[in-house]
This record gives sequence, structure tokens and C-alpha cells, in this order.
Amino acid sequence: MKNSIRESSIGIDIGATKIFFGLQENKLVKRKKKIATPKTKNKLIKELEENIGALLNPKVKKIGIGIPGILNYKNGNIIKCPNLKYLNNLNLKKILENKFKVRVFMENDANCFTLAEAVLGAGKNSDFVLGITLGSGLGAGLIIKDGNRIKIQKGAFGSAGEVGHITIKFDGERCSCGNSGCFECYASAKFFKQKGLSPKKLFEKAERKNKKALEIFKEYGKNLGIGLSAVANIFDPEVIVIGGEISNAQKYFLSEAKKEIKKRVFSPVSRKKIKIKISKLGETAGVIGAGMATCP
Amino acid sequence: MKNSIRESSIGIDIGATKIFFGLQENKLVKRKKKIATPKTKNKLIKELEENIGALLNPKVKKIGIGIPGILNYKNGNIIKCPNLKYLNNLNLKKILENKFKVRVFMENDANCFTLAEAVLGAGKNSDFVLGITLGSGLGAGLIIKDGNRIKIQKGAFGSAGEVGHITIKFDGERCSCGNSGCFECYASAKFFKQKGLSPKKLFEKAERKNKKALEIFKEYGKNLGIGLSAVANIFDPEVIVIGGEISNAQKYFLSEAKKEIKKRVFSPVSRKKIKIKISKLGETAGVIGAGMATCP
Repeated sequence: MKNSIRESSIGIDIGATKIFFGLQENKLVKRKKKIATPKTKNKLIKELEENIGALLNPKVKKIGIGIPGILNYKNGNIIKCPNLKYLNNLNLKKILENKFKVRVFMENDANCFTLAEAVLGAGKNSDFVLGITLGSGLGAGLIIKDGNRIKIQKGAFGSAGEVGHITIKFDGERCSCGNSGCFECYASAKFFKQKGLSPKKLFEKAERKNKKALEIFKEYGKNLGIGLSAVANIFDPEVIVIGGEISNAQKYFLSEAKKEIKKRVFSPVSRKKIKIKISKLGETAGVIGAGMATCP
Repeated sequence: MKNSIRESSIGIDIGATKIFFGLQENKLVKRKKKIATPKTKNKLIKELEENIGALLNPKVKKIGIGIPGILNYKNGNIIKCPNLKYLNNLNLKKILENKFKVRVFMENDANCFTLAEAVLGAGKNSDFVLGITLGSGLGAGLIIKDGNRIKIQKGAFGSAGEVGHITIKFDGERCSCGNSGCFECYASAKFFKQKGLSPKKLFEKAERKNKKALEIFKEYGKNLGIGLSAVANIFDPEVIVIGGEISNAQKYFLSEAKKEIKKRVFSPVSRKKIKIKISKLGETAGVIGAGMATCP
């Protein structure tokens, strides 16, 4: 990856419920906007065009878009987007390049998050960064720095880091992917939904010292730690950076997650040295990382 | 990694029950020998010195050793070797270099297996190779080829690919590592031991069409597939190469494992394209890979 954060760019972070837009200059997000994610493909395209139009200026050399799904990194096509199904088989890159005559780059949203944190945030001083986003789904990005090269690990077919669907309990909860016991069922908003509450409502209860709420967060932390240990045993990161909306409730689950990691990471060296950090860039991380995207 | 397979080398594959020695010239193992693994450290060192001495000739420029455990890749020290505990904190590199005045390289045994298969075996034509060894324990190596560079993925602290201790059933079997539900409990010889049989005995029973034995192998295949899917979702390999002693019984479990992988790998592209192959180099893979080692 070339260090492209010095040129002006528009970063767009498309999520299942919200879309963030940001205009970036010199590593800084100068202007930003948040909208609710439209319910149809046509409305989405309209919103994208309007909001890009409002931010665009002659200095902007690129537009980067983060997508909560699997991409074809050769042509920018969206292959699979489980939490926003109308994006399946859409090629936003083509549509927006035709409209604006500016280069458009596409990237998985958890990769964008990890990229921003690895370059400017909590992973800045680490060479092996695992980024995790805890939201409607569970996303992850794996980044290795090799001198000046910052490489998002994409695997053979562009799908490395699909940690949400690793099995952590093989006769466990049914998952929307059709299998059972997926990490995502235990460590995203889906876990709280099974308990009949949103993470936000539960957080409010925990703030009022509700015992049941505190217990649920503890259980959540344990689940998160078990899954993260699996990823850590495979990828052996120097730091795990945790973001996404649910990370705002970290004080109620993070120590439990850390306890599992310290128990389940197999190598005594990794177990001792691995760092667990909370996102430094917060909800802006996705937009910043999108602005830094360089694919396809 | 420099392509060092053209020069003469001695490869040694130290396993929990057997040690293989091989003299390699021009990609071929010219002479080899197998011995039972000694029960003490001193006997091991004696055996290593005797067998190396017997193979050594003036053309041999390096000795490579595969270890079933975690290494310090900076100085060659053995950090943790759960199935051969007397190796803990031993520095074979120093001992043998002092004795023979030939450079000694150290590598994790599953990495050696994967390296050999990736260069000369079933992963020869693939750029993202996941090697899995099914034996007393469960080992894995991750290799990415980038042009002429063949890179063993080692992670931040030298312990990437420790797949045996990812949790696949978080309230499952107690594992020797102190946790529960580890992949190794379900997909190595430990699984068969829990059923009261060795993989070899069970294989003989399956050969006689014993129904119970065939069922146990099917269950084993399912477990294996669940764990491999987790690794595949994180690393996104082009090919999974399966070796180790248990792989000799593949006809009784491999189709079941493949079925799980085709169900549980999340990306539709990876799911369709991923290849599952059995080791081409067989029990010699470890020795060949050890001869190719370049660390520290």
C-alpha cells in the first residue's frame, strides 16, 4: 500500500444502520456527516451521489468506500453482504466513477477500521495488528507492516479475517449463515438480541448497576475472549484493537475477555506480550480507513 | 526465504514418538533413517550426534531441525514443547553447532511439513498454503508465496498457526493445555484415545467394516472439518494440505471433513475454490522441510 493519506480523499463507511462520510486532508477528517442507511439500492445510490457531490472539490483525488461484506478485489464488485443484502452483486465503483470521474476504491469495512487504527490509532506502534469491530455483526482485519509496506492480509480469495463465522461451540446457537455456534452469535449485537435487549439498553441497565445486565456483559466478555484467543492462536498478533459500537461498553466486558485470552493463547510468549486495546479513532476509524483504501 | 534446497543438507524431524533423519541433495532425500524418540534429553542429544555424524559429509552446508513446539526464532531456543517436555528451554542449535561446526537451523515441525508440501508437494501450485499435521497433536503451518519469496507466517511472536488450541466447543473436553474444547482434543490422536483406541487400531477395525469404527471416523471427520473451517475463515487458504499419521486413514474421514468445510467457509468464492489435498510427500515431508529451514 502506498501511503496515500496525504492526498485529499473522500472516505465513506457503509454500515447496516448508518453511513459515515468524511472529507480528509493531511491525515485529518475536515468535514463529516452521518446518515441512516437507506432501505433500498436506488435510495442508497441517490444518497451516495448527493453526499459525495456536497464534499467533492478539485483537490479530491480519490473516493474510498468501506463495505460490510465480501468484495471482488479485482473489479470492485460486492460479492456478499449479509447485513445489507441489496448490495449483493452491485458495483458501486463503476457507478460512482462514471458519475464523478474520480477513482473509487473499495474495501471491507473491518479492514478499513484496522487500517486506520494500524496507521494512526491504537495499532500505530505495532507491526501485527488484529482489528475487531463489534456491532450488528462481527468483523475483523489482519494487518502486517513490513518496513514501509502496510499489508492487509486478504488470503487467496479476498476473504481472510472472516472471524464472525468461526465455530466456537459446535452444537451452539443457530446462525444466520445456516450453521451453528458461530463466534458472531456470541460476540456481536446478536448475542444481546438473544437475551431480548439491545447492547445500548443493556448498557443503560448496567450503568444503573443492574445485576443481571452486569452478568450478561460478563458472559459476553467471556465469549469474546474465547473467539479472540482462537484468532490470536492462528494469526499471533502483537495487538488486538477493538472497535465498533459495542466497544463503548468495554468497562463491563473487557476484563473478562482479557482473562480468557490470557488463559487460552497457547504460546507463553504471545500470552505475556499480546496487547488488547480499545479503538483510538472511535466511530471515525471506518471513514479514515476507507479514505486510505487502494483496491482494486 | 532463499531457495536453499539445491545445497546438501541434513534434515531432522523430531516427533513425540519417532525421529526421522534425512540427507538431502538436489531436492532428493538420498539417505534416511527412523529411530524411536529417546525418553531423556541426554539420550536424545547422544542419538542426534551419532546419527548426524553418520550422515555428515563435506558437502553438507546446513542442518535443519523440526521441533513439535514453540521456538524463539532469534536464538533457536525451544520455548515450549508440550508433547516432549524435556526439550523445554533446550538450545539444540548451540549444542550441535559447537559439535559439528555446521550451521543449524530450527523450525516448528508443522511449518517444516507445510514448507516441503508448498515447495515440492501437494501445495506446489498454490500461493496460500495451509498445512495440517494430524498425529499425537495437531499442528499447522501457514505459507504465502509472493513471487520467489516463500514466507512462513510466524506472527508477532513466532507462534502463528497454533491451531490445536483454538476452541471449537467452549464447554467441551478438558485439554492438556488447561482449557477446554480445544481443536486438538477433537482432531488428533487424543480424540481416538478418549474413545479407548489408537487411530491405528481403529483403522484396522474400519478395514474389517466394523460399524462403530466407521462411525467414529465420521465423527472425527466432522470435528476436523469444523476446526479447519475456522482456520480457513481466518487465513483464507487456496489449499489445505493434510498430513501426519492419521491422514493414512483419510478414506474414512476426509469426505465428512470436506462436507463441513463446504458448509462453514463463509465466503462463497472461497467455499467453491478451496482445495483439500492429502500430503504428497508423506512421512518424508517433515525431514525435507527441516532441511529447507532458514531460521534463526
